[in-house]
Amino acid sequence: MNFLEERITKDGIVKEGNVLKVDSFLNHQMDIRLFDQIGEEFKKRFEGTEINKILTIEASGIGIACVVARHFDVPVVFAKKSKSINIEGDVYVAEVESFTHKCKNQVIVSKKFINPEDKILIIDDFLANGCALQGLISIVKSAGASVEGIGIAVEKGFQTGGQVIRNLGYHLESLAIVDSMDAATGEIKFREQ
Amino acid sequence: MNFLEERITKDGIVKEGNVLKVDSFLNHQMDIRLFDQIGEEFKKRFEGTEINKILTIEASGIGIACVVARHFDVPVVFAKKSKSINIEGDVYVAEVESFTHKCKNQVIVSKKFINPEDKILIIDDFLANGCALQGLISIVKSAGASVEGIGIAVEKGFQTGGQVIRNLGYHLESLAIVDSMDAATGEIKFREQ
Repeated sequence: MNFLEERITKDGIVKEGNVLKVDSFLNHQMDIRLFDQIGEEFKKRFEGTEINKILTIEASGIGIACVVARHFDVPVVFAKKSKSINIEGDVYVAEVESFTHKCKNQVIVSKKFINPEDKILIIDDFLANGCALQGLISIVKSAGASVEGIGIAVEKGFQTGGQVIRNLGYHLESLAIVDSMDAATGEIKFREQ
Repeated sequence: MNFLEERITKDGIVKEGNVLKVDSFLNHQMDIRLFDQIGEEFKKRFEGTEINKILTIEASGIGIACVVARHFDVPVVFAKKSKSINIEGDVYVAEVESFTHKCKNQVIVSKKFINPEDKILIIDDFLANGCALQGLISIVKSAGASVEGIGIAVEKGFQTGGQVIRNLGYHLESLAIVDSMDAATGEIKFREQ
């Protein structure tokens, strides 16, 4: 087990309905030392890949993305979930369905912040059905930029999001892939990597 | 002028209606090197203050808070803007009105993540009318924890939020306090600190 799988085993909580709660260290309370390790690991896994910008989605992707970005020395852009009066004019838009919140959101990125020459690393905390990720990829495509890699902290391997993205040929790295979990026993099985 | 005031002068855009757009480096695209400088500066300004946790609010506070947290070597908790099915049972709640989005939100923090012995540094990107900040303070109080300091990147000094918080005796540090700005000329005047 790697450091993240160990942490999930220790502090993750399995709930009915295939919910994995990692809110004590990943997406409500955030362990910044762990995020730093995540950054180090992504830096290794995307060694040799040219990246000049990280793209993530609010809210829980932002913390990981910002700490990871230090390891790549690049800025972060986050896709916003609702239209703000402070964002005007030209935005890229994608439709995103949230597994957690059971609702559809539009996410937007100002056109100013993704350019055709950008080499993007997408970072997010979770990958399940892949809707958020598909939205981010579609935004990068709209901008004519390229997705050089995708770094995910926790992938629910029993949902189809990761498989679809890999089938499409993207370089997707998930630090922990949960193949199954059992709310009754609390057991979590990770995919061998 | 300090490093943040210089950056605001260079890249901030003044819009009608007292809107200061800093979305190219602070709250949409995020300059992580700048965030690191912000973290260093807060570490200096809160020298000698015991802090074991940073509290912020989604979405744009999270990035700064996480990078700042590295300088204090503490975890970050962020207040969430809407009730998620993943947060259950016991949460602290505060009502927050957003200047930018012209709407009221409930923000919540799981009771698990703030304890009476916590010594909290609140971090946010903006302080204007102070509503978000008041909500965060009220959550810390509800938990019986203490607010040891408040670190803000940009304060709109011509709105009352900062004054009220200082009057209440909190140790509030804003790295850039905008005393006035002019949408016609683009001029931004900072308070001498």
